[in-house]
Amino acid sequence: MDIIDKLKWRYATKKFDKDRNLSSNKINVLKEAFNLTATSFGLQTIKMIVIEDKALRESLVKFSYNQTQVLDASHLLIICIQDKINREDVNEYYNNIKEIRKTSDEILNPYKNDLIKMMEAKTNKEQQQWSKNQAYIALGNLMTVCAVEEIDSCPMEGFISKSFDEILNLNDKGLKSVLLLPVGYRAQDDIFAGFKKVRMDITESVLEI
Amino acid sequence: MDIIDKLKWRYATKKFDKDRNLSSNKINVLKEAFNLTATSFGLQTIKMIVIEDKALRESLVKFSYNQTQVLDASHLLIICIQDKINREDVNEYYNNIKEIRKTSDEILNPYKNDLIKMMEAKTNKEQQQWSKNQAYIALGNLMTVCAVEEIDSCPMEGFISKSFDEILNLNDKGLKSVLLLPVGYRAQDDIFAGFKKVRMDITESVLEI
Repeated sequence: MDIIDKLKWRYATKKFDKDRNLSSNKINVLKEAFNLTATSFGLQTIKMIVIEDKALRESLVKFSYNQTQVLDASHLLIICIQDKINREDVNEYYNNIKEIRKTSDEILNPYKNDLIKMMEAKTNKEQQQWSKNQAYIALGNLMTVCAVEEIDSCPMEGFISKSFDEILNLNDKGLKSVLLLPVGYRAQDDIFAGFKKVRMDITESVLEI
Repeated sequence: MDIIDKLKWRYATKKFDKDRNLSSNKINVLKEAFNLTATSFGLQTIKMIVIEDKALRESLVKFSYNQTQVLDASHLLIICIQDKINREDVNEYYNNIKEIRKTSDEILNPYKNDLIKMMEAKTNKEQQQWSKNQAYIALGNLMTVCAVEEIDSCPMEGFISKSFDEILNLNDKGLKSVLLLPVGYRAQDDIFAGFKKVRMDITESVLEI
């Protein structure tokens, strides 16, 4: 199946097969794909939480406007942002570059200092928006990787992130939940699977100049 | 090559091979992949511009902080948002659903009216931010599709969008440029191609609860 067929196969799965779980191999692909997501400057101010536990997920359903995909999917992925970006985050990142690439401080320090300045010039709200942008890149990447791997998924913005953060103790970790992606396999009787895909004509959504 | 190998192969290409162009088949894959990007509610308030013309791209380099990928890549993709979201956009979308899926007004109208209300409750700035989120999903999707297709790309937020909008007459089209993605093939001597990928340890970026 080519990539376009895979993207056409993908849809926002509303009803998951409760009895089919993703293999640990598939979960590892998603974890690795998340970690490989391109982020601005490479600064990875986002994290992914993987929840398999059903009891925990049951407590999240009511804060997801009763969308039961959160519970019924094989696993729930939650994309989070850091609630702030500090000088230490940039320092750690550059230490990592130095270690992996053996680049000298002389070369790295000007870039590092520019990035610290850039992050410190942002308000906390701007930092969070900046990280949210990266979360959406990760969502786009993950949905496509799911499609390639024939994993079903359902992107969700509609949930009470404050309640999720409390239940999952994300505040203690300096994180805020921003996007959900239940993943697993579609139920055979999910009527949404049979719906024709609705898209603009390509001549409307893509302009060639 | 499996998907993880493809994602590892991908990097932000700094130097493109000026003499290797993408086939029209490859460009069509990217156009279709963009159009198939999942967007919130399916409302596609984003557009992609494809520019091949070198003279036009040359005029954009100085508004891209002299990052010559904009000129040297085979094609320049520009992801744009609509500058506003009107009731007509929602109406058109629902007309499209009705036509493609033969769903009745009785079923569709409540959803349509809720979406109109939701969009009209947003300030123009909030509408633009909402559309920008979708632009980042598209960027994530496109970078991964490029990797699958072994097309090189370079995601770019750093450019003077106001100048791009003027040069490309985007204001007249009700659009604003938000992200760039030059696409093509890496130059054999792009030193960035040989750099080891820098990522957090997966145990730091992914938490299992």
